[in-house]
Amino acid sequence: MNHATHEITPPAVHWHRRHLLDLERLSAEEVTTLLDVADWLRVKTDGCRTKLSALAGRTSANLFFENSTRTRTSFSLAARRLGADTVEFSASVSSLSKGESFVDTARNIEAMNVDVVVVRHQTPGTPHLLAEQLECAVLNAGDGAHEHPTQGLLDILTIRQRRPSLQGLTVALVGDIAHSRTARSNIWGLKKLGAHVIVCGPSTLVSRRWEEVGVEVAHNLDEILPRCDVLNLLRIQFERQYTRPFPSVREYALLYAMNRRRMERAKDDILIMAPGPINRGVEITTDVADGPHSVILDQVTNGLAVRMAALWLVSHGENATRELLCQVC
Amino acid sequence: MNHATHEITPPAVHWHRRHLLDLERLSAEEVTTLLDVADWLRVKTDGCRTKLSALAGRTSANLFFENSTRTRTSFSLAARRLGADTVEFSASVSSLSKGESFVDTARNIEAMNVDVVVVRHQTPGTPHLLAEQLECAVLNAGDGAHEHPTQGLLDILTIRQRRPSLQGLTVALVGDIAHSRTARSNIWGLKKLGAHVIVCGPSTLVSRRWEEVGVEVAHNLDEILPRCDVLNLLRIQFERQYTRPFPSVREYALLYAMNRRRMERAKDDILIMAPGPINRGVEITTDVADGPHSVILDQVTNGLAVRMAALWLVSHGENATRELLCQVC
Amino acid sequence: MNHATHEITPPAVHWHRRHLLDLERLSAEEVTTLLDVADWLRVKTDGCRTKLSALAGRTSANLFFENSTRTRTSFSLAARRLGADTVEFSASVSSLSKGESFVDTARNIEAMNVDVVVVRHQTPGTPHLLAEQLECAVLNAGDGAHEHPTQGLLDILTIRQRRPSLQGLTVALVGDIAHSRTARSNIWGLKKLGAHVIVCGPSTLVSRRWEEVGVEVAHNLDEILPRCDVLNLLRIQFERQYTRPFPSVREYALLYAMNRRRMERAKDDILIMAPGPINRGVEITTDVADGPHSVILDQVTNGLAVRMAALWLVSHGENATRELLCQVC
Repeated sequence: MNHATHEITPPAVHWHRRHLLDLERLSAEEVTTLLDVADWLRVKTDGCRTKLSALAGRTSANLFFENSTRTRTSFSLAARRLGADTVEFSASVSSLSKGESFVDTARNIEAMNVDVVVVRHQTPGTPHLLAEQLECAVLNAGDGAHEHPTQGLLDILTIRQRRPSLQGLTVALVGDIAHSRTARSNIWGLKKLGAHVIVCGPSTLVSRRWEEVGVEVAHNLDEILPRCDVLNLLRIQFERQYTRPFPSVREYALLYAMNRRRMERAKDDILIMAPGPINRGVEITTDVADGPHSVILDQVTNGLAVRMAALWLVSHGENATRELLCQVC
Repeated sequence: MNHATHEITPPAVHWHRRHLLDLERLSAEEVTTLLDVADWLRVKTDGCRTKLSALAGRTSANLFFENSTRTRTSFSLAARRLGADTVEFSASVSSLSKGESFVDTARNIEAMNVDVVVVRHQTPGTPHLLAEQLECAVLNAGDGAHEHPTQGLLDILTIRQRRPSLQGLTVALVGDIAHSRTARSNIWGLKKLGAHVIVCGPSTLVSRRWEEVGVEVAHNLDEILPRCDVLNLLRIQFERQYTRPFPSVREYALLYAMNRRRMERAKDDILIMAPGPINRGVEITTDVADGPHSVILDQVTNGLAVRMAALWLVSHGENATRELLCQVC
Repeated sequence: MNHATHEITPPAVHWHRRHLLDLERLSAEEVTTLLDVADWLRVKTDGCRTKLSALAGRTSANLFFENSTRTRTSFSLAARRLGADTVEFSASVSSLSKGESFVDTARNIEAMNVDVVVVRHQTPGTPHLLAEQLECAVLNAGDGAHEHPTQGLLDILTIRQRRPSLQGLTVALVGDIAHSRTARSNIWGLKKLGAHVIVCGPSTLVSRRWEEVGVEVAHNLDEILPRCDVLNLLRIQFERQYTRPFPSVREYALLYAMNRRRMERAKDDILIMAPGPINRGVEITTDVADGPHSVILDQVTNGLAVRMAALWLVSHGENATRELLCQVC
């Protein structure tokens, strides 16, 4: 990894937002600030290991209405690495089972002097609704098939740490684009930073309409493979209940799995990414997932860095400046 | 809110108890101490935001056998705002599923050097049983339909912050009195401080026997409304399995919901409270819940203050003094 | 308890391991180091009450795939008493429900810069598999019916605190030996320190093959009782689905329950232990469980000490020395 070199100087901070709800509406400058602050905090915490007191005395609440291992824990650890307290909520044990509305639950949490609410919900737009109703900061940790901005950011950060610039890079998102909030957040973020984005998968899962926003649409991985700098292999979400969009898993793997044979036809320095959890043998074979081009586990570590950056920025909103960032580190 | 003014001088501390099990058996002085210490800690933590080290090195265990969002989190945050560690237990993942007795589970938790056990259980008297069996302090976080002392205290604190005295105030508890531990704790606490208490609801949910302890019983909200200083609107607990005590939710709302029309007939400075979670459109309409007389969300913040006070007092027991309180803040 | 006297001098530290997976493969010196460090940390934390900063900035992850009250909490509190952060995972809410492999879940947790993974799993050997696949330290918190090393250590520590030496002591493990990881860890640890071990129970639950490793096998408790220094009464695990190995619970209690009548025939200073959770009236009666010979609750407190020792030793691995231990305390 070469990402320790370009981060010595503290980054400029262009940020005036109270919330992080999506990447679609951010400017390129704002996306860059998130990435720069993440890089900075990664260095300042010795690779996300040591603790800062940047958010000491603040409380971040995880309000998760879908199962999650890594995102919930990543947000929780990121908050604690910045010195914040964390509280955890989940749908099954909350008062929602007593008939309380979602917004009332969130308002009650806020009334306990929570500073940031990190929300995951199966309904698109839930974080935006909360942002309207609450005075505290809201971070979207995934809303249905809409967006998952910190996942998009950590994917992009992982690329940027290995390339001088996103400008002109060809990044293919492969798999279930239709149901993927990760795909959406990647598309908006990558486009803003100048990358060429391809969405690739069965026509049942990849709409031609993406062309309208300047994204290349492909259904044949083997055709686009030789010109890709990065492959981001999305998971087929078997746990979602929808009509099976392709004949069989074996058929899908035959057409879209990244395996040793396909690696031979890829660029020498191709980066293999996957947002995880991965289905070994479906979208990716074991030798590729664990091979030298894979940056899958570094994506996880970058998740901590990106979430620290997001928590820090929304906690300070308009007051987030380079000076303040230097002070707290 | 005018509650920041009368709290500058540290309060007298009249407290000699190891546990907080109910309000029924507390003296008026003890109830006042709980409220005074809560007010004091609220100010000293900048509205329950900043941290003290008053209970640093101590551990509080949440032992909850019923679902809970706000009470569990409120106790947990209160403990951490005082510098204590917290551990969480719930019935479903504990050894109770292996046949262990409730008391043995609690004794095991105590043997891990837990200082305070906060217990919620569907069986009335469970906290009292634990208090007999354990050496550590026990806080009742709700035992069946018996008592929920910190809820009673936070309701009373919220009134007291807005009125010079409870003496002579008329407070009506409206709704499901029969199944409400919140009602019971409010009744005992309010009576001790000199308030006039009315319990109001369908005759199936409000017993005439409350008159025996000096509580006024009413079945017609519209009759008592004009002379109420405070309305505390209890939730109809649909999740409890009992025979429906009234013909329909619509019928209940017609007779007992606090709505705009009824607000016109209420005192100009009436306080509208609800222990939450609220069922909008049942016991309270949205315009009233979110209106200028509503103090519902401030009740939640006061919950932190009251729980800090309770944790601090039972942690010190006979050693709790004004001098110690001043030292740690 | 007389265990505060012999611990004034810091112990020698013989430890070079990255993981604690079982007691079977440890040397007597390593077992002794674990016990010595546990005793030392128990004293240095005022009986496991106060906090050290020995592992400040480190993170311990509880990865539990079976229900647990005491072990999970004990590890969590032990980590926090040493100043470490903790994160909790459970099977039901993790990405395993999305089809991710167990090892991938663990690798993802490690990629969040977790320093120690504490794992409980129903499959024997799972911690060993993780130790091969991860770079962070792995602690076995129970793997199927194989081993539960910290439980064995806390049992042995509880004996050692009350006897000058394990050498020549007769310790009987009574009950369900076949399904008990606790029995296995006790057997290996006790044998290494020179104790004479008897396994005692119905022939359906106690195999003659234990004789091959120098363990005495008995089926009649009354015969061996007079020469036992310690009885460790294992729980009949009713929640495991296997053919009932004895005619009835009443029959089991008649033959193997430790009760007042049997206590009269035991040594005057016999120690009564049980790993808990106990089934009162099955393997032990209430008067014995709560009587003067019972050290059951002190076992729980020793659990904290042993887990602090294990966390500290594996966190430092080859660098764990007496000098470092003295520094951090």
